[in-house]
Amino acid sequence: MPLAPWRSPLARALHRNRSLVYARYAQLATVRTDGRPANRTVVFRGFLEPTQQLKFITDRRSEKIGQILAQPWGELCWYFPNTREQFRLSGALTLVQADCANPDFAKARQIQWQDLSGAARAQFAWPDPGQPRAEAKLFELPPLDPLQPSPNFCLLLLDPHQVDHLELRGEPQNRCRYQYQPATAEWATESVNP
Amino acid sequence: MPLAPWRSPLARALHRNRSLVYARYAQLATVRTDGRPANRTVVFRGFLEPTQQLKFITDRRSEKIGQILAQPWGELCWYFPNTREQFRLSGALTLVQADCANPDFAKARQIQWQDLSGAARAQFAWPDPGQPRAEAKLFELPPLDPLQPSPNFCLLLLDPHQVDHLELRGEPQNRCRYQYQPATAEWATESVNP
Repeated sequence: MPLAPWRSPLARALHRNRSLVYARYAQLATVRTDGRPANRTVVFRGFLEPTQQLKFITDRRSEKIGQILAQPWGELCWYFPNTREQFRLSGALTLVQADCANPDFAKARQIQWQDLSGAARAQFAWPDPGQPRAEAKLFELPPLDPLQPSPNFCLLLLDPHQVDHLELRGEPQNRCRYQYQPATAEWATESVNP
Repeated sequence: MPLAPWRSPLARALHRNRSLVYARYAQLATVRTDGRPANRTVVFRGFLEPTQQLKFITDRRSEKIGQILAQPWGELCWYFPNTREQFRLSGALTLVQADCANPDFAKARQIQWQDLSGAARAQFAWPDPGQPRAEAKLFELPPLDPLQPSPNFCLLLLDPHQVDHLELRGEPQNRCRYQYQPATAEWATESVNP
């Protein structure tokens, strides 16, 4: 599978901003079941190679799970401070939970779990997120199995259908839009006004 | 009008991150007319004092205008790198355009325009954003009137109804939710699990 044409500028941005740990943080918008938007910071965990899907992790007890099940579409807004550029990636969201029937996805979930630090894994045993604060001692839990994912652990995949790349540094700025064409399974690239 | 209780931690975050120009950038999610989310970076322009409304600017030719007119609700996700904390502000959006009948809003729009740099003002005379790229010479336009806002210039206000503040530094992390209570015009504050 050839790389989508937006992969190269995105890889360049990641490389040029690698000195900032938070250059791997981006904001994922979803839609609540009441039709209002939701938005939170997520950590980019790389691509599900050889596809163009971006990987994130989440907790099945978080609010976004119900949102994604009802409206499996998201838009990631990713700003790179060093190079002053923004990528907006709009696409389908897939939740990979413990009961996932797709063996590739299930395998990717397991590998992702094994790649986490012990501290990151421990969060999946914390009391229910968003509920009134539990006693502090409840957060002191034995380490989770480093091989077998917690049932709360979800892999979240974003499969972009449109990517909008804006470079603020140009005079004037540059903006490029990449649009997936399902009929031909190819990407159309267009330079647009910023 | 007393300050909402989330104003103090937000002011502290802005102060502690003031060395980063992009600490004033945040991501605003809205909903498209097809029910899918949209998300883009916006620049915080301060509060519309003495209210709790956050100010941003936008172009009436941008896609978000139609989205906001159809669904006047947004969620701002604001990550502060130096202090590793996130604010999620969910609330009603108000577009203040050239024909605004509210004199306070119209005045705020005019002042905002006058506060812009010449380069920032010039963007409102650029060719239509998102359309196929126009000739470069079209971007070379005479400077706009520094006193009278371009008809393309909009002030955008976000009036938060819920604020979710997450501090990643705690052991475990701290998370606090502020919820506006319309019946009493007061804010409820609750410590919740991260």
